[in-house]
Amino acid sequence: MTITRETIRHDGFESVAIFDDAASGTQPGILLFPNVLGTKEADFVYAEKVAALGYTVLVADVFGEGKRTSRSDAKPSIYMDELNADRVMMRDRVNGAHGILKRLPQVDPACTAAIGFCFGGKCVLDLARSGADIAGGVSFHGVYDAPPFPNATISAKLLLCHGWEDPIAPPQAVLDIAKELTEAGCDWQIHAYGHTGHAFTDESVNMPDKGLAYSADADHRSFRSMRDFLGDLFS
Amino acid sequence: MTITRETIRHDGFESVAIFDDAASGTQPGILLFPNVLGTKEADFVYAEKVAALGYTVLVADVFGEGKRTSRSDAKPSIYMDELNADRVMMRDRVNGAHGILKRLPQVDPACTAAIGFCFGGKCVLDLARSGADIAGGVSFHGVYDAPPFPNATISAKLLLCHGWEDPIAPPQAVLDIAKELTEAGCDWQIHAYGHTGHAFTDESVNMPDKGLAYSADADHRSFRSMRDFLGDLFS
Repeated sequence: MTITRETIRHDGFESVAIFDDAASGTQPGILLFPNVLGTKEADFVYAEKVAALGYTVLVADVFGEGKRTSRSDAKPSIYMDELNADRVMMRDRVNGAHGILKRLPQVDPACTAAIGFCFGGKCVLDLARSGADIAGGVSFHGVYDAPPFPNATISAKLLLCHGWEDPIAPPQAVLDIAKELTEAGCDWQIHAYGHTGHAFTDESVNMPDKGLAYSADADHRSFRSMRDFLGDLFS
Repeated sequence: MTITRETIRHDGFESVAIFDDAASGTQPGILLFPNVLGTKEADFVYAEKVAALGYTVLVADVFGEGKRTSRSDAKPSIYMDELNADRVMMRDRVNGAHGILKRLPQVDPACTAAIGFCFGGKCVLDLARSGADIAGGVSFHGVYDAPPFPNATISAKLLLCHGWEDPIAPPQAVLDIAKELTEAGCDWQIHAYGHTGHAFTDESVNMPDKGLAYSADADHRSFRSMRDFLGDLFS
């Protein structure tokens, strides 16, 4: 196994494909949507763990080349805010990234899925909401507010890994997304973790007083659930 | 592997131990609490699947010898109702069964857990609520109403596998049990399945109009989650 990174420039965006260069033939393709900060080393590392399971991963840039932030910036959410303010643009961006994934030579375009963290979880949901032909999607500590336009029938299976103490998605938001996904006909699961806040997969986050903190248990549990979920999709 | 059944009579109850007779030494012990009908063939079959994972299972009778019902009875819930009406007696019964499990020669008494279905899920929760020294518990389409007395600190980890359309445990009951378990200090997870009702592990149930029906997907998903959960407890 030779996990390889390859920068993919497409229409002003800069995504990164991560795959086993020693694999033969095509593999299922997984979109990985990063959090508010955009693509970064932590995403590439997570993608490498997913690629090691037998997938080709595209860490998707939906902000635009060079548009990245860090938590110490004056406004880390500047690029995310643009997309949150224009869910049509967001829908088109996530579908654009899906098109790029499907055209990677390593990917079987009939077998794709998406995963994402925080804002990236919302990207997964918006991709599924648009009726995209992904087999499934996994949201980790995602954001659940629906777009201001109707959903397509959601053909993707969805798994939402959720920290019950997440201040960005309180219990009412869980009830709302469950209702929304049920009405859209989606095969959905929510795995809720007690005593767990937002950002539980992110080792760089430790702000428990704000409800944002890494949790080794939730990271372990959600990774395994994702692994099994993807395995069911493509086995 | 030689999965064996052995009837265990104890203080007027008749439980069934299910274990690999070819295994050497002791194993972690799992209590299996049946649904409203009491111990029956379907429980023994499920227990055999759990025993095959490397556990000794006690299918626990909490009603009393001979006290079994079927769905065609005039009042299938007659014995369950007695326990629901007296949660102190219920607490003592489930703890009594736990004592029997720990004394089985095949069981390492320091490594026990409990699983249960419907009313049996409630037995799991009441055992945990009593502060029993189980490492963990798994409730499948359980019933969540709290006893009319305070919980102990819950040291057991808990996994609740839950059908979102369960008429016996609607969304408000999920919010309530999440709050209760959080306040009790419990390490808890809830796996909720969309478009899934009560009794999703029970192949004999097909009453979707009443919100009670077997679901092959939810059965598969919850069995695997239980397997992994138990594995984490005892690895």
